[in-house]
Amino acid sequence: MEYVKFDETREMDLILLGRVAIDFNPAYNEYVKEEFKPLKKVHMFEKFVGGSPANIAVGVTRHGMKAGFIGKVSDDQFGEFVVDYFKEQGIDTSHITKCKNGEKLGLTFTEMLSSSESKILMYRNCIADLQLDVEDIDEAYIKKSKAILISGTALAQSPSREAALKAVMVAKRNDVRIIFDIDYRAYNWKNEDEISIYYSAVAKEADIIMGSREEFDLTEKLIRPGMTDEESAALWQGYHARIVVIKHGMKGSTAYTCDGQSFSIKPFPVEARKGFGGGDGYGSGFLYGLYQGWDIIDCLEFGSAEASMMVKSNNCSDSLPTPEEVHAFIKEEKESFGEMIARV
Amino acid sequence: MEYVKFDETREMDLILLGRVAIDFNPAYNEYVKEEFKPLKKVHMFEKFVGGSPANIAVGVTRHGMKAGFIGKVSDDQFGEFVVDYFKEQGIDTSHITKCKNGEKLGLTFTEMLSSSESKILMYRNCIADLQLDVEDIDEAYIKKSKAILISGTALAQSPSREAALKAVMVAKRNDVRIIFDIDYRAYNWKNEDEISIYYSAVAKEADIIMGSREEFDLTEKLIRPGMTDEESAALWQGYHARIVVIKHGMKGSTAYTCDGQSFSIKPFPVEARKGFGGGDGYGSGFLYGLYQGWDIIDCLEFGSAEASMMVKSNNCSDSLPTPEEVHAFIKEEKESFGEMIARV
Amino acid sequence: MEYVKFDETREMDLILLGRVAIDFNPAYNEYVKEEFKPLKKVHMFEKFVGGSPANIAVGVTRHGMKAGFIGKVSDDQFGEFVVDYFKEQGIDTSHITKCKNGEKLGLTFTEMLSSSESKILMYRNCIADLQLDVEDIDEAYIKKSKAILISGTALAQSPSREAALKAVMVAKRNDVRIIFDIDYRAYNWKNEDEISIYYSAVAKEADIIMGSREEFDLTEKLIRPGMTDEESAALWQGYHARIVVIKHGMKGSTAYTCDGQSFSIKPFPVEARKGFGGGDGYGSGFLYGLYQGWDIIDCLEFGSAEASMMVKSNNCSDSLPTPEEVHAFIKEEKESFGEMIARV
Amino acid sequence: MEYVKFDETREMDLILLGRVAIDFNPAYNEYVKEEFKPLKKVHMFEKFVGGSPANIAVGVTRHGMKAGFIGKVSDDQFGEFVVDYFKEQGIDTSHITKCKNGEKLGLTFTEMLSSSESKILMYRNCIADLQLDVEDIDEAYIKKSKAILISGTALAQSPSREAALKAVMVAKRNDVRIIFDIDYRAYNWKNEDEISIYYSAVAKEADIIMGSREEFDLTEKLIRPGMTDEESAALWQGYHARIVVIKHGMKGSTAYTCDGQSFSIKPFPVEARKGFGGGDGYGSGFLYGLYQGWDIIDCLEFGSAEASMMVKSNNCSDSLPTPEEVHAFIKEEKESFGEMIARV
Repeated sequence: MEYVKFDETREMDLILLGRVAIDFNPAYNEYVKEEFKPLKKVHMFEKFVGGSPANIAVGVTRHGMKAGFIGKVSDDQFGEFVVDYFKEQGIDTSHITKCKNGEKLGLTFTEMLSSSESKILMYRNCIADLQLDVEDIDEAYIKKSKAILISGTALAQSPSREAALKAVMVAKRNDVRIIFDIDYRAYNWKNEDEISIYYSAVAKEADIIMGSREEFDLTEKLIRPGMTDEESAALWQGYHARIVVIKHGMKGSTAYTCDGQSFSIKPFPVEARKGFGGGDGYGSGFLYGLYQGWDIIDCLEFGSAEASMMVKSNNCSDSLPTPEEVHAFIKEEKESFGEMIARV
Repeated sequence: MEYVKFDETREMDLILLGRVAIDFNPAYNEYVKEEFKPLKKVHMFEKFVGGSPANIAVGVTRHGMKAGFIGKVSDDQFGEFVVDYFKEQGIDTSHITKCKNGEKLGLTFTEMLSSSESKILMYRNCIADLQLDVEDIDEAYIKKSKAILISGTALAQSPSREAALKAVMVAKRNDVRIIFDIDYRAYNWKNEDEISIYYSAVAKEADIIMGSREEFDLTEKLIRPGMTDEESAALWQGYHARIVVIKHGMKGSTAYTCDGQSFSIKPFPVEARKGFGGGDGYGSGFLYGLYQGWDIIDCLEFGSAEASMMVKSNNCSDSLPTPEEVHAFIKEEKESFGEMIARV
Repeated sequence: MEYVKFDETREMDLILLGRVAIDFNPAYNEYVKEEFKPLKKVHMFEKFVGGSPANIAVGVTRHGMKAGFIGKVSDDQFGEFVVDYFKEQGIDTSHITKCKNGEKLGLTFTEMLSSSESKILMYRNCIADLQLDVEDIDEAYIKKSKAILISGTALAQSPSREAALKAVMVAKRNDVRIIFDIDYRAYNWKNEDEISIYYSAVAKEADIIMGSREEFDLTEKLIRPGMTDEESAALWQGYHARIVVIKHGMKGSTAYTCDGQSFSIKPFPVEARKGFGGGDGYGSGFLYGLYQGWDIIDCLEFGSAEASMMVKSNNCSDSLPTPEEVHAFIKEEKESFGEMIARV
Repeated sequence: MEYVKFDETREMDLILLGRVAIDFNPAYNEYVKEEFKPLKKVHMFEKFVGGSPANIAVGVTRHGMKAGFIGKVSDDQFGEFVVDYFKEQGIDTSHITKCKNGEKLGLTFTEMLSSSESKILMYRNCIADLQLDVEDIDEAYIKKSKAILISGTALAQSPSREAALKAVMVAKRNDVRIIFDIDYRAYNWKNEDEISIYYSAVAKEADIIMGSREEFDLTEKLIRPGMTDEESAALWQGYHARIVVIKHGMKGSTAYTCDGQSFSIKPFPVEARKGFGGGDGYGSGFLYGLYQGWDIIDCLEFGSAEASMMVKSNNCSDSLPTPEEVHAFIKEEKESFGEMIARV
């Protein structure tokens, strides 16, 4: 069954709206290896494009999809780095604009303490991505696309909050599918009620919602707290959702479809370098499968494989694989661990 | 037909959320008469409680309804004046709290240039009412009431914006009727897209929506601009609205009900002192009729009469009449101008 | 001895820099008398131009001096009221500019509880006068004047703080006498250290300093706290001060001159309507005498008389007297109470 | 002649007040060499403690002086990195406090385009160092030190501005020598008048002033623009300055002493890696010489040598030399280029 119908006449596959930033990761390459240690003791860093929707934009583009990005960058060398990188990847950057009041690109310094412990130190005060404005939302652009992906981080503060909400309203009236990637970051939010108000406002309009159990709990706080996954899925499907994906970290994740079915997947076994980037790989892979018209369980397996490939890597954007690499990884893992290794 | 069903077991009739302020009107009483003139030339002023939801709270209480108010006032003599006045009227003030960071009560200086021209000069920077916070929204209180009235001005800025949106969500899950009085004031809003985003968010959840044609246009900008009254009514009734009241100033107003009917009324002929306060009288009278279970056309006539009584007066809160006074005014007007004077 | 030498070739006598605001005082006139009562219970108000340097500008102009004002007003009817009023008085308003970001004129609501108790409720958030900017300081204008009076309130916040400090530097390099009227208002200041830093920065450059003992204590906190009046005078005379006037309210005030002398005066006995406005009358009268070349003790007596006339009145600006009226008042008081009534 | 007399009974030599930050420099070490290129193309960075007064604190401590630091750092791993590093160097960190509202440590990304072209990209919005508050200025601490060094950057914004001004006042009344290192950074300042106001406020109180010609021009804008070095020196010596050092980049610098003498020095010839850090080496070396009681020309030569050593290096703090290393460098340079190589 085709749960989400994309309009094949649209020239773009996906427009992503939200945060693009720079990741500074402890150097770990052929020249230098900063082993697991507290961030304050790291001396050398590698610079990468980062930010969840930016990574998914890179991921789906590497899979051959046609993506564009609506975002705001700093008017400096870092802003140029990001736009240059997107262009090299083939992402449409026509709707990325520069800040005018000296706001800077977000920075994420990653701390890798062990294969199971990683943290981030974020620079997100007076930050470029949250300066996205309603003026930046171009209806003519949005309606060129089959779908728009809203990253929940864009809802954390005005004026980006209103830009994201406008994009949802504009997408709705132009029959553009809405994908909501909750992507919770504590930074910039003032209180939990606010999170529930704005997450739920977008979730009510979304065709696809993706998030962890904790993220759904935050979203549902003012509607009905303490729901099970099945109840959450039913709630959102009572609005517009066709597919609700709820993740439980290493325990796996489940996609609930609007016909009452559910499909579950587990992570593939890998040695992790860090805890970040898995979700972006998952999103890229899952959406790619969906656009191909695959069965949901195959979309999930592909997403899960891509997630596992990402946590092994030292970064989030540069390491995103091609479909061939994902297929090869799945084949290899299945040969080692059995055909059903990721199935529940 | 009973379009909106109120839960008669609830102890309060109506909780109003939003702006309470002070009106300084050119003195016009038995001692001093500041005739029509530019504000800068006015020397003596009279002080009154003001703000649309505050006035409606006074109005319905004078009609015998049990009302409460959720709002924020300054921690000074003006804040005390407002709370004292509410208490004298019989309004429950248990959920009016004081600002902690020196924010001041809003002030409205009214300029009365002629019987058809009046303007206002507002003090609304760092203002008390917009400091209402999600912490101030008490579910146990809201669920005591048959209905909550949200004044659109409360949506103009954070943190009041989120407080109002939370109140709507809390009302919804407790089956409290939601009345949305759009009450547009240009002050504090940043752009028109923002207005449409937040007005429509509340309008989608409301059982009753009241506003002028211009206010509906602002609300609908990002959904479908340029609608007729009938189209607007149909749009909101497609969500949750049972009654949609659209006003056209001196040309009259129409209530569209969810059974496809519409009922129209005109103003009663009076000599106006100012252009303000009519809407608050209208709202008080219309809601009173509705709570009495009257036919819609009678609710409208009562509201229209109360509106006409208000524009004749020098102020907005002190002059709000009792039901007996409204009935007497209607009787007198009909005797002078005919039974159908306000009917279309 | 001529303690302060004014350059008689300059076309203007005095430019005042700082706060102009509106006073709303409980109505007390031939039509309406709001007797002593808490502010919240006052129903009718009279509107007057207010703000200490504004009042002194009015005062010295009524005495025949040629004054100008550097200030910022709101872009509304209240801003126009102030400028119109200044023009009517004969004050040069060429360097009063309008705010561009919606800042409003300060408002002062006066509470008159008894003849010895009065308070004020101030509206000073996002306020017009504190928007004065370094761009507003015009050297060509300042050097036209014999002296500039800096009101300490202008130092409470940026950008007005820097505008005032620039005016002092510009006056200095153009040999314009600097008069510092400390005029402390708690509002807008963040902490006492800040007050000492900025008050002392201006006091160090001033030719004449006027303030209460409390105001000198605030000024000296980071230099040497706990000084006597004599020590304070000596400290500032060690910088540039020629005359230091220290006030002790009802106990009288003393002028310390740079030749080591001191001259004291007491208030004239009157029935006070309020505690405000006395200082402005005092400043106007004292400066007038000084410009006339009078002996210091005569300047003080004239200032003290004008102060006493002001506290009797219901307002601060409209009641400022002409020199003839002050002379008449002194004559009358001396006839009633003896020649030495105000002398110490 | 001993131009500046330090109180030898004080236990500390120098307390520095101002900015401590992190420098991210393109990696250039035995493992990785990021050659000259635009910042956006740099992939690997090395992290160092940075900020002019922080570097001077490190420099003088390496020379054996007892230094302390008054500053504000972020409450995160970067803040801890800075404090740990200071402690390792032997700097007293008892008066470095942590920000409470999420402000972050300043970051400086250095762009090295060629040996003569380098730029910086600064993160200085909502920045930790400018949160220094008057509450952080501890008189008991300041009076333990022979001198305090105020970095002009601390004057760029409140509340750090007032903290620095308070420190100057407190130093003054405790007979602590005041060293003003102008250290102009365009970031955070609003206009040039403001710069002149605050720089001159500190310069008027300083015993030693160090800055470039451009920095003196900024300082003197509102006093007398367009002065020569000799006029500048005379102006400040007319206040409290004993030594005024004015730098002209590659053309060398001159120290003007209060006895009317002047002493000039040139840079030592080296191949520069970057344009930054020279001033910090200069300051460290010059002050070290002064504390040793050397002749001014020897202080200058030592400072100039240390400056030359710094611009050769890839960073500003880690490469600061010991006195032995500076002496060795001078010896070597003189052997290569002649005894008078740096003398004018």
